[in-house]
This record gives sequence, C-alpha cells and structure tokens, in this order.
Amino acid sequence: MKGFFRVQTPAQLLQKLNRFKPLSYEEVPFEESLHRVLAEDIISPANLPEFPRSTVDGFALKAKDTYGVSEKNPALFQVIGEIPMGKISEITLMDGEAAKVATGGMVPNGADAVQMVEYTEWVDSHTIHAFKTLSPLENVIQAGEDIKAGEVVLRKGRLIRPQEIGLLAGIGRTPVRVSLRPRVGIISSGDEIVPVEQKPLSGEVRDINRHTIVSMVKETGTIPVFLGIAKDRFNDLKEKIDLGLRELDMVVITGGSSVGTLDLVGEVLQSFPGTEILGHGLSIRPGKPTLLADIDGKPFLGLPGHPVSAMVIFHLFGKPLLKILSGLSDEMEPQIKWKVKAGRNIPSVAGREDYVRVTLEEKDGILWAYPVFGKSGAISHLVNADGLIRIGIDDEGLEEGEEAEVILL
Amino acid sequence: MKGFFRVQTPAQLLQKLNRFKPLSYEEVPFEESLHRVLAEDIISPANLPEFPRSTVDGFALKAKDTYGVSEKNPALFQVIGEIPMGKISEITLMDGEAAKVATGGMVPNGADAVQMVEYTEWVDSHTIHAFKTLSPLENVIQAGEDIKAGEVVLRKGRLIRPQEIGLLAGIGRTPVRVSLRPRVGIISSGDEIVPVEQKPLSGEVRDINRHTIVSMVKETGTIPVFLGIAKDRFNDLKEKIDLGLRELDMVVITGGSSVGTLDLVGEVLQSFPGTEILGHGLSIRPGKPTLLADIDGKPFLGLPGHPVSAMVIFHLFGKPLLKILSGLSDEMEPQIKWKVKAGRNIPSVAGREDYVRVTLEEKDGILWAYPVFGKSGAISHLVNADGLIRIGIDDEGLEEGEEAEVILL
Repeated sequence: MKGFFRVQTPAQLLQKLNRFKPLSYEEVPFEESLHRVLAEDIISPANLPEFPRSTVDGFALKAKDTYGVSEKNPALFQVIGEIPMGKISEITLMDGEAAKVATGGMVPNGADAVQMVEYTEWVDSHTIHAFKTLSPLENVIQAGEDIKAGEVVLRKGRLIRPQEIGLLAGIGRTPVRVSLRPRVGIISSGDEIVPVEQKPLSGEVRDINRHTIVSMVKETGTIPVFLGIAKDRFNDLKEKIDLGLRELDMVVITGGSSVGTLDLVGEVLQSFPGTEILGHGLSIRPGKPTLLADIDGKPFLGLPGHPVSAMVIFHLFGKPLLKILSGLSDEMEPQIKWKVKAGRNIPSVAGREDYVRVTLEEKDGILWAYPVFGKSGAISHLVNADGLIRIGIDDEGLEEGEEAEVILL
Repeated sequence: MKGFFRVQTPAQLLQKLNRFKPLSYEEVPFEESLHRVLAEDIISPANLPEFPRSTVDGFALKAKDTYGVSEKNPALFQVIGEIPMGKISEITLMDGEAAKVATGGMVPNGADAVQMVEYTEWVDSHTIHAFKTLSPLENVIQAGEDIKAGEVVLRKGRLIRPQEIGLLAGIGRTPVRVSLRPRVGIISSGDEIVPVEQKPLSGEVRDINRHTIVSMVKETGTIPVFLGIAKDRFNDLKEKIDLGLRELDMVVITGGSSVGTLDLVGEVLQSFPGTEILGHGLSIRPGKPTLLADIDGKPFLGLPGHPVSAMVIFHLFGKPLLKILSGLSDEMEPQIKWKVKAGRNIPSVAGREDYVRVTLEEKDGILWAYPVFGKSGAISHLVNADGLIRIGIDDEGLEEGEEAEVILL
C-alpha cells in the first residue's frame, strides 16, 4: 500500500541531518557580511586598543603619587599639558606631574592611572589637588587589553551579527570569507492549487504555501527560488524536482492537501540515481506525512500541503537544514529553549509530538500560553497565534500551569 | 557647566517617544511586504475556504445515515463517484449514497460529513460498509469557516510575517498599503575616529559605531544612510545634522568617546528652530550621556561613543523610535519579557538601571546568566555575550538564583 509509512520520531529524523555538508565560500567586504556565516577563523592583526586609553575624563598621572591621599589630605600635581584626542601624546610624565585627558584619550608615557575629574580641584592654572588613592592601571584600558594581536577573535561557523561587524570594523578586517548562501528551490503541488493572482474556481484554492515558505526562507537569509506549481503527476513532479536538484542547493515541495501526494513524490525521488529516503512519516502533529531525502548530497524536504503543517515542519526541519548548508556551527548558537506555562489543560496523545498554536499573555511576571482552537487547515489561526508549544512524545497533554517549550512565530 | 545633566530614568524618557508619528504609506505587491507594517485594515473579499472541504481522506455522505452504526453493525453506502481535486463536484448525494473524496477536496451537495477511509471497507466495487457514527459537519471545514467575506482579517499597524503573507495569498489580496520604511541618518563623531579602511595612527581608532548602528538599523528593516564622521566642532556637526534632518526621517549620532561631545551636539541642536530637547542624561549604565530631541517632529538620538553603550542605547531607544515611525502598533506586538536566573551574585547600584552583558547556559531546564567581565569599552565582550540582563533602578544587584529580564543580542 502506497500510504504505508515507517513512522519515525522527530528526534530520530533530526539526527539524520548531520550527513549534509556546508556549501563552499566566497569573500565579501566586511560591511556586507551581516547575517552571513564565517567560513574562516578571524585573527586580529593588531592590538585593540592600539595604545593605552583613559576610560574617564580626568588627569593621567602615576598611581604611586596618590598613595595615602584623601579628601582631607590631597596630593598636589603639576599639570604639564593636555592630551589631544586622536593625536599621539608627546608628553612623558615625571613624578608629581599630571596631564589632562578625556575619555578615550591616550594615556601618556610615564602615567599608569587616571584620576577622575570629580576627584580633583584646580589650585591655580597649572596645579591641581587630587583627592583619591589610585591603584596602577585604574581607569586605564591597556594596549591589547580588549584584543591581542594574533588572537583568534571570531571562529569559523559563527553567525555575523551587528557586534561581530563592529569587531571586524575595530580590527579593520576586510574582506571576510563567508559561506555561500544556500539557494532553495520551492515547488507547490496539487491539482487544486492555482497561482494567487488567479481567481480560484470552485474546488480550487490559491497557492498559500509558495508564499509562506518563500518568506520563511527569506527570513533565514538564504535565497528562495520558486519553481512552479506541479500537478499531481509523475512527469510534472519529476521535471520540476530535477530542475531544482540540478541548479540549486536544496529542494522543498509542499505536498498538496492529499495525504497521497508525498507518496507520489517519494516514487519520483526513487527514479533519481543516488536517492536515499531518510524519512517518510513522522510521529508528529501536524506534519505526519513529512518526507526527507538525500539526493547525491542535496537535501530534499517534502512538506504537508496544509499551510499550517507546512510552516511547522519547515520550522523544525527546513531551518536546521539551511543552517547546516550555511556552515553555521551548533556551538556558536546557544539552543535557548524558552518556557511558558499552559493557561489551561491542553490534551494530546502519547506517541507523537504535538505542536499546538498558542497566544501568549503575561500575568504576574509569568508567560501563559492559551491554545488557539479551530480546525487545522485554517490560516487565520496561524496569524492569530504568537507561537507554538511543544508537547513531548511521551506526554498526554499539559495540565494548566505546567511548563512547556515555546517557539515564537 | 556644560556637563550638567538633568538626569531622567529610562522609563521617563521612553514615555516621551509617543509624541512621534508614523510616516506616510506606499502600496507594494503583497509578496514584497514581508517585515513591512500594514497601513490599512485588510478586509477579505471572499470566504475561505470558498467551498466546503474535507479535512480527511474518505467518503462524503449524510451524517444521519451513520447514526447508530458500529464495527459490528455497519451501514451500507452506494459509492456514486469520486470528487476530483481542484474541480467542481457535479455530484448531488441522496440518502444512502457516498462519494470518494481526498483531503482538501470539495464536499458535494447533499453531503454534510466525511467518513475517514480507515472506518470503511469495500463490499464490492460500488458499495462500502461504514463503521462509525458521524455528527453533521464532522471532518468538514465549511465555506467561510476560516475567514468570512467582509471580515477584517488583519489590522493596520500589524507587522507582516510569513503567516500574514500566507493569509494575503489565501484571499488574493494585492497590492497592500504599508508604512514607508524610515530612512535613518547616521553620523559618527570624534576627533579620534578614522574610517575603517584607514590604518589608525597612534591616538586614533577605527569607526566601529558606524558599522554596528548601520547593521542594527538594517535588522529593523529600515534604511540606514551614513552621513560621515564629524569632527568635534560646531560647524562640522551642524552641517551633517542639518543634512540628515532635511533629507531623512531620523538622525542618530554616536558621540565620540568624550563625555563632552553630546553637550556640543546639544548646543548644535539648539541652533535649529523647532528643537525640543526631550532628555539629556539618563540614570542608566551604560549610556548615561544619552540625548534625545524632537526637531520639528523628527527624532534625533545622541548615543554615547563607547561601542557597547551605543548598541545598548540604540536597542532601548532607537528601535522603539523606528517602530513608531514605521507605524507598528504596540497592541500588535506582545511585549514578551524573557526571564533567566543569575548564575552568580551581580552587584549594581540603586538609582540607575544597569544592563549587564551575560552569557547564557542551560542547566536542568533553567537558563542561567553569567556576567561577562571586563572594562566597558571592550568590543570583544560584546561578541562574547549572548544577551543583556536588566537590573532595575531600585535594585542593588541580583543574588545568585534571582530572576531577571534578558534581552538577546
């Protein structure tokens, strides 16, 4: 029988994603690398800061000249100059001397600490009193204290966020080597599916999945390529899948609304040499018919046709696949599992993982999750949900007040 | 004295953001509206689904014909046809008749329920036994059950995510009216700041803030425009700020590393007619010198020069300003405050809000936050942090195990 699934757990299928390998790399100017993944270790060519800098507005001096001073017993300093911002300081301080310095300014030779302006008082135009004892290096950031020349500052596999851009700017590193952005072929299937711009006749429905999956791919920073709507026929499916596998890095198909579509897709995949079906049928709701294959090293993901199911499964399997192809290191991204509490009893069936659409509400500092009711095909329920909560495969639902993991939508 | 601040709390300053108004709007094809903000209510022109659909694979029939049936006492049905996917069903069912239908297929006239294939058995090629009692509408999603024609399905002010794109696709709504994307002028200032591509001489530092703030603006989906590095001089600052205010929707300056720079910026702002300084000086760390002004209705934000401080303040004030200019409704976005526990004692000073850089670690299902130590100017600490935790203005730090809000970086 075609509809026969060897059902796996979501965790079993997730483990099989490791077989896929990151794509190659390219070099881009550092300022264009936001949300890309580093494909090399970045080594700092220089110390940061490159010179000792004051962290306060005040007077650079020798710490030892302040030992034992206090409000009632200040030390006297000769002010021999002011450090100009952005310039080399020519000053060398001797005992009992000080130089005015602003935050970020260079701490001159001979000085090893900075007295904050709040703890000083002008005695005359060349002399100050300092009221506070300093230890050496107080209010000074030393050359190389932030980053040392030769140090690995960012590792291969790291996602580049604004702060990594800042670090690359700080050390003047450009271009940088980043992984290629995966190009994802997206196919809609189903005899009832028509393009959005076409008014559906009775029995037909607009192609929602094309647009939700394209949007989700865009959000990962990878490149969606829509390959068209395939009819539920072997040759039409084969032609579009073949094009995607030849030209792109991954292919995703949404399987029409019929349970049988992904079986037909499975038969099409078997006709390609080098196909290994990694999973077809998951103990999950929604998303039972999910299909995953490895075709000569390229991932192929078959999603259920229901828009809600397709989005949930793309979130759980499509996004991790794209992370792997992008070269994103697991270690670099802490897998943070946010917890909320069930706002009411939520039934489930043991033996499958349930993803329940919920709205979130904060009350007394706790986030409560309330299920969104309604039949599973409804797109309106998805736009009204804030997230999904996961009910584990061994659980028979959640009781009011019980904790559960949440995925934000 | 120039450095005099009338220090406000962050909450006091946040309240003043309400005075700013959303920009105008434009129309875009729905598939280009991802991450934009709706500037109109969307009303569905049609029912969704447009026809009654089966939610299972099985046989459409009259529910009343199954009343009282069971495994041992099945009902007999004449199968008079199969509903083709994507086509109008010409069939009208009479009592005792059934029609084969796939998930998503049209439920024909005369039928009001669908018996799942699992609860049927072929008797001969035209007749089935059905083993389960159905109630009317069981396994059927009625026309308009998801969305009714004339219903407001998305409200003005809503952020368009993949699921909203899906809804717009489902009802065939294009183009859509969205708020204009704010254009944000960004100025770096400080005599010591040089462009990244230039090798800094001693005393000079590369312009980190340009690139971190540009990247953060990109992440909000708004448009960064870099206006250059201004020297700490009235005329240079005035020229660049004037250009930004004339041509763009908001101006952000990073204030060099000296505490005094934002005072000079404040003087420059006073020279524009229509300037109202809303705040200069905040009880927050990092970020005390923060400056916010309203210049003829356009927001101007002065950030501290330390890269870390600039990022924290842009997160806390720049992003909310951009949401307001983008027309994003507060109601539409639940303000979710994620909580973690302090992994060790974290001291703070009452009377100011502290934002402490932390790494996060999951242990026994709890997320623990560990402070990243080091001097505040260090960019390396920011790339090593997973987030910031907030220590409230009345708190004197956190004890190990105490809960705190976290902002992910």
